Amino acid sequence: MQEDASDAVTDLIVLSIDAMGGDHGPSIVVAGVALAAKQGLCGPARFILHGREDELAAELKKFPGAQAVCEIRHSDTTISMQDKPAHALRRGKGTSLWNCIESVKSGGASAAVSAGNTGALMAISKLQLRMAADMDRPAIVASWPNAKGVATVLDVGANVVCNAEQLVEFAIMGEAFHRAMHGVERPSIGILNVGSEDEKGHDEVREANRLLREAGLNLNYHGFVEGTDLAKGTVDVVVTDGFTGNIALKTAEGMARFFAGEMRSALTSSPIAMLGALLASGGLKAMRAKLDPSSVNGGPLLGLNGVVVKSHGSSDARGFSNAIKLAANLARSGYAAEASAKITQLETALHAEHQPAKAEIKA
Amino acid sequence: MQEDASDAVTDLIVLSIDAMGGDHGPSIVVAGVALAAKQGLCGPARFILHGREDELAAELKKFPGAQAVCEIRHSDTTISMQDKPAHALRRGKGTSLWNCIESVKSGGASAAVSAGNTGALMAISKLQLRMAADMDRPAIVASWPNAKGVATVLDVGANVVCNAEQLVEFAIMGEAFHRAMHGVERPSIGILNVGSEDEKGHDEVREANRLLREAGLNLNYHGFVEGTDLAKGTVDVVVTDGFTGNIALKTAEGMARFFAGEMRSALTSSPIAMLGALLASGGLKAMRAKLDPSSVNGGPLLGLNGVVVKSHGSSDARGFSNAIKLAANLARSGYAAEASAKITQLETALHAEHQPAKAEIKA
Repeated sequence: MQEDASDAVTDLIVLSIDAMGGDHGPSIVVAGVALAAKQGLCGPARFILHGREDELAAELKKFPGAQAVCEIRHSDTTISMQDKPAHALRRGKGTSLWNCIESVKSGGASAAVSAGNTGALMAISKLQLRMAADMDRPAIVASWPNAKGVATVLDVGANVVCNAEQLVEFAIMGEAFHRAMHGVERPSIGILNVGSEDEKGHDEVREANRLLREAGLNLNYHGFVEGTDLAKGTVDVVVTDGFTGNIALKTAEGMARFFAGEMRSALTSSPIAMLGALLASGGLKAMRAKLDPSSVNGGPLLGLNGVVVKSHGSSDARGFSNAIKLAANLARSGYAAEASAKITQLETALHAEHQPAKAEIKA
Repeated sequence: MQEDASDAVTDLIVLSIDAMGGDHGPSIVVAGVALAAKQGLCGPARFILHGREDELAAELKKFPGAQAVCEIRHSDTTISMQDKPAHALRRGKGTSLWNCIESVKSGGASAAVSAGNTGALMAISKLQLRMAADMDRPAIVASWPNAKGVATVLDVGANVVCNAEQLVEFAIMGEAFHRAMHGVERPSIGILNVGSEDEKGHDEVREANRLLREAGLNLNYHGFVEGTDLAKGTVDVVVTDGFTGNIALKTAEGMARFFAGEMRSALTSSPIAMLGALLASGGLKAMRAKLDPSSVNGGPLLGLNGVVVKSHGSSDARGFSNAIKLAANLARSGYAAEASAKITQLETALHAEHQPAKAEIKA
């Protein structure tokens, strides 16, 4: 594969893949890439697979159709799922994850996908690509299935403690991301809180609520939403700190698995129920597919100078292929420019708020 | 009804009911009381119904069997679901909610139940009954159905911002409550966090984690748990701040409704699926009952000098009767004494930690 050939093909995109990441490693990752390529999930695309050459070559042999669009780039070492981010930063150079991000930094690829260690991915992405504007850490996004479709929920784990300005940045990035992903022109935005009234919640959410109303960002801001609104689909973009978002997401994931298990028990509780389940199986299968979190797998790390998508560590090949599709769509969209323009606006508004005394002195 | 007759009946309990509270008011509350009385959910019990005499008498007429165990105490005014806690404190005297709590304060009743305004209930309960030990505000408890039964989760909304000591107090109260409610001798305890490793999360959860390991409280402390552990039932008692707990609870409630709706759609998607659903209906009904949050309705406000139980505002009569049952069980248990003893231990341990310099000076 020649990367410089990309000009010759309309809209060809190059995706950089950490082929060693995830709980299952290359077998799932390579199968996911092959599935994405076979189903044309990314449009015209080529893939750089970072990892141990022999292992990857063996896996790739299983998918002859994918070989033509994949290039293996050997990495001697890997970052384990257990390594701490600080360790990953010190010892990460030359690992498959590091090289995966470096391909984006060098311009050789338009987006990176990894199912590896989240902390290491965040730290290495931030170090190599740097943050756009003044954000502290990239936000992790969940695409959350609900009664109306899918909502964009962020942050779901990266920023455990957030101030008001960061929450507003999440709103800006989430809005641009949602438009890019789902074609909604003016996505509605809500801040997750313990009630919908303006005086509810702690200082950070109340101040973010005020900024979103008053900073002139021209966003379709709805106000506070509650936990129940996640499943209802009340707004397109749900903004929260990484602590709350992570717990809400994992609570919902756990509930989904619990319900599925209970439903299985209910439908096998008697021979009559089993017959009923058999007859109803078409509808139930469609329902499970709709609720399955892996059908919308892939969490972009928003706020970096470059597209990086995190796949669930436990994802299967189909889930990984969805993460790849998301990375390709995001790389082709105008998301980055839109978010960057609004964040500049936010900074101007905050600067104006903090400088009135100075202006008065001058006057 | 004569309250002083209670001595004459073994284990007779008097329960004070805010009969005007909740989205549906007296019709649901009185029906809930009647259901609890009819089914003997509270053991030998009598009920003081606080509210407008004419309205309550009219409702009570519908349940002739309950009249003998109910006494109506007239209150001229009520607190609306929209009133702010500060307003409720200033203008609350003489309302059904105020009088409901006063019956506990005066010793006339062993526990209070209200489906009214949560903020007002908390404020008036705290003002009249005062907090046990050094806690800031009473914690709201959810009884959370999971794969292994039911877990005790707190706080789910009262204390939006919590420090480490408060989280440890929640652990102590939740443990004693869980033992009282479910007969588990040494309930296991976990703190809700974004990961299970000791270094995960923000300062407050890390410090609470340390205290629970080191303060010698002789609790069955498991460590950190994640959102997925709520449905798994990994621990008996899940400790969290009121912001996160409220959002996790409402997220799960919303998901439960979403799944139920999707299941309905799936099972009515075709004539064959409908036939299947009909055949499987017994099992599905059992499943819904198990997952239905109203089957475990009733959140005690833990940490007060007295038993106060909050019922969901939108609860039906069955849900309200479960809240009454919970209040009776809690009032009859040794929960208060056990929690109080451990909180004294915690204070001693914290005091010792903060005083080492003084001890050294003396030596």
